[in-house]
Amino acid sequence: MPYFEALIDRAETLLAPVIRETPMEPSPALSRQLGVPAWLKLECLQITGSFKIRGALFALQELRDSGASTVATCSAGNHGLGLAYAASLAKLPARIYVPGQVDPAKVDLLKGMGAEVRISPHAGFDETEAWAKDEVRRDGIPFISAYDDELILAGNGGTMMREMRRQLPELETLIVPVGGGGLSGGMLLSAAAPRRLVATQTQASPALALSLKNGAAVTRMDSVETLAGGLEGGIGLLGFEALRKHGPQVIGVSEEEIRDGVRWTLATHRYLVEPSSAVAIAAARRPEIKVGGPTVVVLTGRNIGMDVLRGILG
Amino acid sequence: MPYFEALIDRAETLLAPVIRETPMEPSPALSRQLGVPAWLKLECLQITGSFKIRGALFALQELRDSGASTVATCSAGNHGLGLAYAASLAKLPARIYVPGQVDPAKVDLLKGMGAEVRISPHAGFDETEAWAKDEVRRDGIPFISAYDDELILAGNGGTMMREMRRQLPELETLIVPVGGGGLSGGMLLSAAAPRRLVATQTQASPALALSLKNGAAVTRMDSVETLAGGLEGGIGLLGFEALRKHGPQVIGVSEEEIRDGVRWTLATHRYLVEPSSAVAIAAARRPEIKVGGPTVVVLTGRNIGMDVLRGILG
Repeated sequence: MPYFEALIDRAETLLAPVIRETPMEPSPALSRQLGVPAWLKLECLQITGSFKIRGALFALQELRDSGASTVATCSAGNHGLGLAYAASLAKLPARIYVPGQVDPAKVDLLKGMGAEVRISPHAGFDETEAWAKDEVRRDGIPFISAYDDELILAGNGGTMMREMRRQLPELETLIVPVGGGGLSGGMLLSAAAPRRLVATQTQASPALALSLKNGAAVTRMDSVETLAGGLEGGIGLLGFEALRKHGPQVIGVSEEEIRDGVRWTLATHRYLVEPSSAVAIAAARRPEIKVGGPTVVVLTGRNIGMDVLRGILG
Repeated sequence: MPYFEALIDRAETLLAPVIRETPMEPSPALSRQLGVPAWLKLECLQITGSFKIRGALFALQELRDSGASTVATCSAGNHGLGLAYAASLAKLPARIYVPGQVDPAKVDLLKGMGAEVRISPHAGFDETEAWAKDEVRRDGIPFISAYDDELILAGNGGTMMREMRRQLPELETLIVPVGGGGLSGGMLLSAAAPRRLVATQTQASPALALSLKNGAAVTRMDSVETLAGGLEGGIGLLGFEALRKHGPQVIGVSEEEIRDGVRWTLATHRYLVEPSSAVAIAAARRPEIKVGGPTVVVLTGRNIGMDVLRGILG
């Protein structure tokens, strides 16, 4: 797929001076458990606290090069944070739509980075995004989806996949959190893609499992309570198509397994991860997981609130 | 001091393929507070969880090159962990003496890395170290001090100082935890040394402040209860001499300020740090701190027990 590789090339060139090349750390504990050499990709140490800065920076720059003078997105989470940061670097105004049930601390954080924040009349993500898309269409502002956009797939999944392949050329299996499918889809579309991928979700919002069962992407889902808010909601068309073609093992994990995953990562490797990252650790600890050869668990972010962390540590 | 620079050269060459170049992260919150541009040196993200791997690897390799077939040290903390890891890489037997009051989990961790662990009949560090030195003298095994050894100063402080100078050439002020003085002393002896250094200690074990008052290094102190166990005990002669010549501002912080420092770092930058790191954050938040120009707070490690973390988060 030379077109997608060319996008990744452009994204890598743009990102190199700005983002961190995050470490690949061996995990003796997971290696024993899985029976293969296992690593953690420490993307939780990325600037802004998650991988989302990769796609946000790339998409923003591409839109700017096409003449956009403002950009918009819908996200109160890591993508919103990434886009607000990218916009502050590029000195481009950003408008960020957030669900009505947003944590006020996150609104302050986004405003502190200079973004304009619009709070939705709807509580959940999918309704908010639909409303936001109507608004920006009316105002003529380009909208950067958090997950269903080829620039986001190339920036997030494409660049990280190449980075991992350079760090560990013999990589065979990836264990990765899946929400909207932008990260995992971008990885699978890349020429550096792994032979095998384990897609991990929260059981509270199993869009990928439902989509594979239905044979079509479930793009909208009702809002639910889950610690892994970053993985909540429907799956994107682009990501789903890439995942469907690949045929990953899908593992859904419970809220209690997510809490265990956060504690395990702190206690065993001493890194802070957010619940949406911990789903991959939780899946790696399931007896039914199927891995082959050198295996990497992708830790996607560390943006966890102190109250949530306190609750998890108990 | 060309001899010390030559040592740092050798250490850098040895360490480059093994350790991480840890990031330098801007801190908007500390910049506002201090009134100067402020950064965090994220050495808490180093392999083995602290900077101690730098000196341990270098000292071990130098001793091995001089014909040693076993090495010994006294430390149940980060230096012991660093040396055990270095010895496992170099496939050289290591004997690690630990105080009688050691946490059994730490003994298991050291043994798991292949080290021989000898538990002291003495509870505290300084008595244990004196006993350990007698033992190894009898057995003819070279002893690597955790802090009072020029190889450790060059490996720990010397290499990190050069790395920070490359990352931030305009660096003027360093805020750094001081215990035995191996880190701060090595930084000050380096040609890359900062113009100004703020030495931070736990009030529970103020060896540097006492030594400056006495005009001579207080090399042994009674064992005390402190969260910052890595900074407990006397100061080394080499480190003290370098600090005395420089004339740093010395700030001693309380246990409650240390807890606040751990919480601040988690909440503001989302990194896990151990209490012995958090003293530097605590000092940076004191109104009497004197900084000038671009300022760096050195976060030295992340090895904190889950029970301690739980207690701090409350």
